[in-house]
Amino acid sequence: MDTKHIQLAHGGGGQLTTELIEQVILPALGGPQEPKRLTDAAAIALDSDRVVFTTDTYVIVPLEFPGGDIGKLSVCGTINDLAVAGARPKSLSLALVLEEGLEIDLLRRILKSAGRAAADSGVEIVTGDTKVVERGGVSGIIINTAGIGELIEGANLGFARIGTDDEIVLSGPLGEHALAVMSQREGLSFTADLQSDCAAIHTLTAALLKQLGRDVHFMRDPTRGGLAATLVEISTATGRTVEIVEEAIPVNKTAHAAAEMLGLDLLTAANEGKLVAVVAAGTGKRAAEILSAFGLGTRSAVIGRICDVGEAAIVEMLTTIGGRRVIHMPYGEELPRIC
Amino acid sequence: MDTKHIQLAHGGGGQLTTELIEQVILPALGGPQEPKRLTDAAAIALDSDRVVFTTDTYVIVPLEFPGGDIGKLSVCGTINDLAVAGARPKSLSLALVLEEGLEIDLLRRILKSAGRAAADSGVEIVTGDTKVVERGGVSGIIINTAGIGELIEGANLGFARIGTDDEIVLSGPLGEHALAVMSQREGLSFTADLQSDCAAIHTLTAALLKQLGRDVHFMRDPTRGGLAATLVEISTATGRTVEIVEEAIPVNKTAHAAAEMLGLDLLTAANEGKLVAVVAAGTGKRAAEILSAFGLGTRSAVIGRICDVGEAAIVEMLTTIGGRRVIHMPYGEELPRIC
Repeated sequence: MDTKHIQLAHGGGGQLTTELIEQVILPALGGPQEPKRLTDAAAIALDSDRVVFTTDTYVIVPLEFPGGDIGKLSVCGTINDLAVAGARPKSLSLALVLEEGLEIDLLRRILKSAGRAAADSGVEIVTGDTKVVERGGVSGIIINTAGIGELIEGANLGFARIGTDDEIVLSGPLGEHALAVMSQREGLSFTADLQSDCAAIHTLTAALLKQLGRDVHFMRDPTRGGLAATLVEISTATGRTVEIVEEAIPVNKTAHAAAEMLGLDLLTAANEGKLVAVVAAGTGKRAAEILSAFGLGTRSAVIGRICDVGEAAIVEMLTTIGGRRVIHMPYGEELPRIC
Repeated sequence: MDTKHIQLAHGGGGQLTTELIEQVILPALGGPQEPKRLTDAAAIALDSDRVVFTTDTYVIVPLEFPGGDIGKLSVCGTINDLAVAGARPKSLSLALVLEEGLEIDLLRRILKSAGRAAADSGVEIVTGDTKVVERGGVSGIIINTAGIGELIEGANLGFARIGTDDEIVLSGPLGEHALAVMSQREGLSFTADLQSDCAAIHTLTAALLKQLGRDVHFMRDPTRGGLAATLVEISTATGRTVEIVEEAIPVNKTAHAAAEMLGLDLLTAANEGKLVAVVAAGTGKRAAEILSAFGLGTRSAVIGRICDVGEAAIVEMLTTIGGRRVIHMPYGEELPRIC
């Protein structure tokens, strides 16, 4: 029997499923510790009666990319959704759809990476599911993670809290995830030092909430659709113009060069370890300082502000050469399977 | 522009994604009511500090089958995982992976069915995600649902609670889901009246817990791997022999005939609306009566018992003709993509 590749029989719910879970999945996820049993349904003790619940399915191709892989991405991405909702991430589920013929060593690497990302973030993977589909029924691996977090005391976030002269803070340069993945897909060679920014940002969001409290009005991680989608969403939901300053936006030079070469716009490119925060007027600089204390936020900057009601509800960028450019919601798919 | 089929651009996180969510997904899921916004992360107020968390990905083919579809299945299946863990199902996430070219009307039907199943069960779908992959990157639709439930007071379930002479109760005939799906795939004609048992069983589990309390020791919904997998798991985990009586197991005649024709074993066939409960010695009959009060449990029966420690840990069936048959864990995949 072929023991190096996934077979359809691994998904039947019988002995082979049990073996796959006990001999491959749990040891890989659990790392050096005793592998835990992932129950069909896990009981969790919560300290709060306000929980936050989120889900994301990850379909990225290729499965491994510079700076990460689908395992790390699926853990960090869902942690980040909880974090920007003002929650302390607590528990994750992890559901696998595997393609028949998948190399088991690749699966093991990806799960180890997921387990490590969870451990590093202080989050537990508590329940799971494994399905296998026939060759061609899915490309390699699809992972869904859902997450539960406890709302941080004092967190009060939402479009409704955004007001005039609120400041917009960004935790670092744009597009590193999208451009690292696209450079690999396109075989660009000059981008050797470009890595996806794939990382969990819950320590950044928790620090902001702890130190600025109610002055934090809104947070978002600008993934699919990039910073442009996040800002247009803010503008649409609040009916206000959002103004950003091109010069103020931190730039990764390699990502910038790769974007130029591939004809992509860094403003719409996906990020997987960045935070956009809207904070009260006058607190932007302080917010950027708080974020700069973290390795993930060293290049944090105030990049714009929220305008008064009454002006048109658009997103406008003051460009480096002194002009004004209206930023639109990206229409459709710029980069398929980027997350 | 083709407005009847899913395009890659629907997954880009831009304007088309927003339109798909607002014009198709939310109205279909929400039914006649005002469609709610599904946030990236939903805040939930809980009455309990003991929650149960579960996840399942559904890859069933075909997407629509007699008695259900992948939408209803994905809601009921996850509700059932919470239910057999002793929880009151409360909130679900629903994450879609759509194939480019998918008919939007089919998507609408499936989401309506999911929304109806959730509403009928008193459960809210509170958060979601939508990804689109290229043609051939997935077959039609894959759905992941994760679920949160509140542990029912007094529920104390687990392998460790199973003891000598505990009785095994089954809520109805086996294999209706697997055989309804397989009959459709194989084009059998005599099975016109055979429908999947796809249904939410949380009212049954809640009634058992309410009326029998701590006398309910263990519950499981026998899905992939069927009753055989559930019983072998019990036997392996407890180190005890499990004895069932063939004559006592309720039979659906059409499912039985279809199984004979297709060479399948009803004991290993998947169910999607059945409950297996292990209850204290002497309470089996009462448990079956409680379940029989529900439309989904009219054919509930005591089908076996747990033997004393010390005997071999096997699953044995006393057959109709007076013999004994050892029931094994199914080895691998009997029926790919059955759930």
